[in-house]
Amino acid sequence: MQVNGTPYRCIWLEADKRTVGIIDQTKLPHRFETVSLRTLNDTIVAISDMLVRGAPLIGATAAYGVCLGLTEQSKDCSDTHLEKICAALIAARPTAVNLRWAVERMRSLLTDLPPEERVEAAYQEAALICDEDAQANESLGEHGLKLIRKKYEETGKPVNLLTHCNAGWLATVDWGTALSPIFKAQQAGIPIHVWVDETRPRNQGAHLTTWELASAGIDHHLIVDNSGGHLMQQGKVDLCIVGTDRTTCTGDVCNKIGTYLKALAAADNNIPFYVALPSSTIDWTLEHGAAIPIEERDQEEVLLVSGLAENGEIQKVRIAPEQTRAANPAFDVTPARLITGLITERGICKPNKKSLLSVFPEYME
Amino acid sequence: MQVNGTPYRCIWLEADKRTVGIIDQTKLPHRFETVSLRTLNDTIVAISDMLVRGAPLIGATAAYGVCLGLTEQSKDCSDTHLEKICAALIAARPTAVNLRWAVERMRSLLTDLPPEERVEAAYQEAALICDEDAQANESLGEHGLKLIRKKYEETGKPVNLLTHCNAGWLATVDWGTALSPIFKAQQAGIPIHVWVDETRPRNQGAHLTTWELASAGIDHHLIVDNSGGHLMQQGKVDLCIVGTDRTTCTGDVCNKIGTYLKALAAADNNIPFYVALPSSTIDWTLEHGAAIPIEERDQEEVLLVSGLAENGEIQKVRIAPEQTRAANPAFDVTPARLITGLITERGICKPNKKSLLSVFPEYME
Repeated sequence: MQVNGTPYRCIWLEADKRTVGIIDQTKLPHRFETVSLRTLNDTIVAISDMLVRGAPLIGATAAYGVCLGLTEQSKDCSDTHLEKICAALIAARPTAVNLRWAVERMRSLLTDLPPEERVEAAYQEAALICDEDAQANESLGEHGLKLIRKKYEETGKPVNLLTHCNAGWLATVDWGTALSPIFKAQQAGIPIHVWVDETRPRNQGAHLTTWELASAGIDHHLIVDNSGGHLMQQGKVDLCIVGTDRTTCTGDVCNKIGTYLKALAAADNNIPFYVALPSSTIDWTLEHGAAIPIEERDQEEVLLVSGLAENGEIQKVRIAPEQTRAANPAFDVTPARLITGLITERGICKPNKKSLLSVFPEYME
Repeated sequence: MQVNGTPYRCIWLEADKRTVGIIDQTKLPHRFETVSLRTLNDTIVAISDMLVRGAPLIGATAAYGVCLGLTEQSKDCSDTHLEKICAALIAARPTAVNLRWAVERMRSLLTDLPPEERVEAAYQEAALICDEDAQANESLGEHGLKLIRKKYEETGKPVNLLTHCNAGWLATVDWGTALSPIFKAQQAGIPIHVWVDETRPRNQGAHLTTWELASAGIDHHLIVDNSGGHLMQQGKVDLCIVGTDRTTCTGDVCNKIGTYLKALAAADNNIPFYVALPSSTIDWTLEHGAAIPIEERDQEEVLLVSGLAENGEIQKVRIAPEQTRAANPAFDVTPARLITGLITERGICKPNKKSLLSVFPEYME
């Protein structure tokens, strides 16, 4: 995607072919700054402090984290060190399955190679993971586009979409998941309008989704997370599309906290509720969403809100009394029964095991 | 209720028996400041800028607004002027029915009196409206207490309540609506814990409910509006109690935006969802919640978040890019089918016309 006319991905190799470049997403939308990752620890901090976030991008970053772990000071490519690197990366964030998926893919490839070949192979594989992610997201965008086009052809009016959190290109290597069909619709000349949930506590909707849509010239309104149900009752939402951090093989979806509430409202108002995902987000080992570990993050994310102060500085303000503590579960699980369909890189399927396996038969037992 | 050991109501007459005192709720929880209202316009600004808010308190403030309109400079107590005062007050906020209810009660009393008796009668009636509100809320608190006590007796464990927005004593003259049973439970020694929805965009939960609970020593956690559904799925909520700005005679409830989403989640998880209200909040003329006008407030309430900066000043920070616009509906309608019961000053009833009329037979046609 383009930033002020320059094409960007969310992660790239710098000129030395070793250092990894990322966008510091904690500064958006107020500042566009890039950061260089040079060590495994840089990578872990970038993931846990959410300079990068979004399941697919976390996976891609972790893949490069393995590369950086093998090349930093010690240049230790032994099995033992590789194991340590992988364990440290997986511990950085517990919920998104792409992190584990990408690390396991790197580990399984590298373990079979002699140590002296591991660095080159790691960089090659990380680049491949990035390319595949961008390609899968573009492809699922084409499939999702059909839903938007169909709605437009039915009504002849601008299609009103609602999305939660940021599942745009900033959440992936490129294109995004939930926003990929929206970018495709814009390019296809279909009139659209997007309701953007601000997505407290970290406001990825307010900070990132709005910024992506504004940059692409897509009509949108920011709303508080409380508003979506009312807008659906009023007939102002045609279609919901969200992303996912982990999807069970039975179609339960673990996504940013609050997704479940929007899915309930969509079901109550007969509004289609779709989840867009590259298949790397599917956890084929899990049957029940309730078994997914939900990350509990620092209460300060709830108690302090970050934004641009009048003096042009990014500041945090405290919204609660000094004595008040906060709870901060980062994700919730939307049961398959509330989901209309899953938009994958191979097409749209129902949120159940049979339908998922019909699209991804290689996972059949 | 007490603030630092001093008993307060949310509205009072100052020593001159003419000026009206209120708490500036836009400064809480960071500053406790009171403001003097001396004119009709002071009153309208206090209501529309939300220095006072909460349906019952808006009603009480509007009643005193009539008094101030009759006593300011012109001292004009004519029918024409009285009509102008009433119309201006009713226009200040469109959704809460107590505003209209209180103004109509004042108008109907005063119209029947000769102009020279109107000022004294107005101050007497406004004081009566305040006393009745405090009494109704204390009384509904006793009824709601039974629900909390029953849950405690069933489980023997601390009762986990969830509430949205602020329906505490700050939303009324005293005691509050949704929080009144909670204060009563605390006084009765029943162990309780409250999940407080922050309630974007104006964060009345984060600013006011937390402050009330902290002041009363009641165990609580602040949560983002997105979290309640997940907590219910996890079995961490025993009972939801919210307030209402307008209730139809069929039991539909118009309350702060986002209430509907919590009611959906409560229904999906078989958790009782109660609405606490003094009967002044019931609109006996309305059968359908969908007919209630929903106030659309300034987009800046969504785009800017107010809080305490590190330097100790109350500041606003912008959370979205410069180009992004916001939509800001202030209320939504929760249909009666999602509500377990209505907690009124005369007891708990089902959210339907028959049950409401059995408790308030004087409204039978």
